[in-house]
Amino acid sequence: MTATATSDNTFIKSLLMFIRAHDQSSAWDSMPDEEVLAPYILSKEQRREIPLFGDPDPDILWRVEQYFNAIAMAIETRSGRAVAPIMKIHHEGWGRMILTAGKLVAVNSYMRELHRFGFDSIEEMSAKAQKLIDEGVATIEKYPDVAAA
Amino acid sequence: MTATATSDNTFIKSLLMFIRAHDQSSAWDSMPDEEVLAPYILSKEQRREIPLFGDPDPDILWRVEQYFNAIAMAIETRSGRAVAPIMKIHHEGWGRMILTAGKLVAVNSYMRELHRFGFDSIEEMSAKAQKLIDEGVATIEKYPDVAAA
Repeated sequence: MTATATSDNTFIKSLLMFIRAHDQSSAWDSMPDEEVLAPYILSKEQRREIPLFGDPDPDILWRVEQYFNAIAMAIETRSGRAVAPIMKIHHEGWGRMILTAGKLVAVNSYMRELHRFGFDSIEEMSAKAQKLIDEGVATIEKYPDVAAA
Repeated sequence: MTATATSDNTFIKSLLMFIRAHDQSSAWDSMPDEEVLAPYILSKEQRREIPLFGDPDPDILWRVEQYFNAIAMAIETRSGRAVAPIMKIHHEGWGRMILTAGKLVAVNSYMRELHRFGFDSIEEMSAKAQKLIDEGVATIEKYPDVAAA
């Protein structure tokens, strides 16, 4: 991973901020960014090994939540509109996540098999988040009056 | 309660349908509507007696969910648009509920002190639901292209 991947990226910076905000021991403050993000990175083989029966690890659901919080913040930064996430995850590992701006659904995302939530690399995670961010910003630009309502 | 309160009302009819749909014993099929709805009705005194510490009874959260499902269905019936509810309730008894139609947030409702969720009467419950239904339908009528997006 290049230094740029964690330092010049609103999404990654926000994600690191949200994760570190939950660290009450401040042990993560001095931990390198890559290490803080490490639980998000799983190879395809590692993902395949995680069984899909039973409930996903609550830590995974927490990570999904921080991931979407960071997407919301990146959309907020680019659009200038307050963006609020609302997420409903069934304990069996599927769910729906919505980011709203005013009366507008800026992003609507369905998730499943969250047991295996993870990305090949920080770059891949960032690129996938960027797609949702671009989609959210474009939707807000398309319906500015609804986003302001 | 008058007979009209349960028979001529899309919201109440939908609420009864959602509740009965969860009854696997079919004991509720022959139960009078008023009895099926009875857990929703609490006097002010009864509500005040419920402590606000600790987590609310999961049955209450289930009832809140059916309440909003019925509101969603009434909006869907009146507007002709598919309406999807998404609800995030913290286990301590507060949360946010959103009803979406297309890319539109038709209803956005914040809830708190759900430990005490209940209404003085079926009429009061129905009137409060009706306010949210009217609001949702009006929002869809105001932004028809977003609701269709």
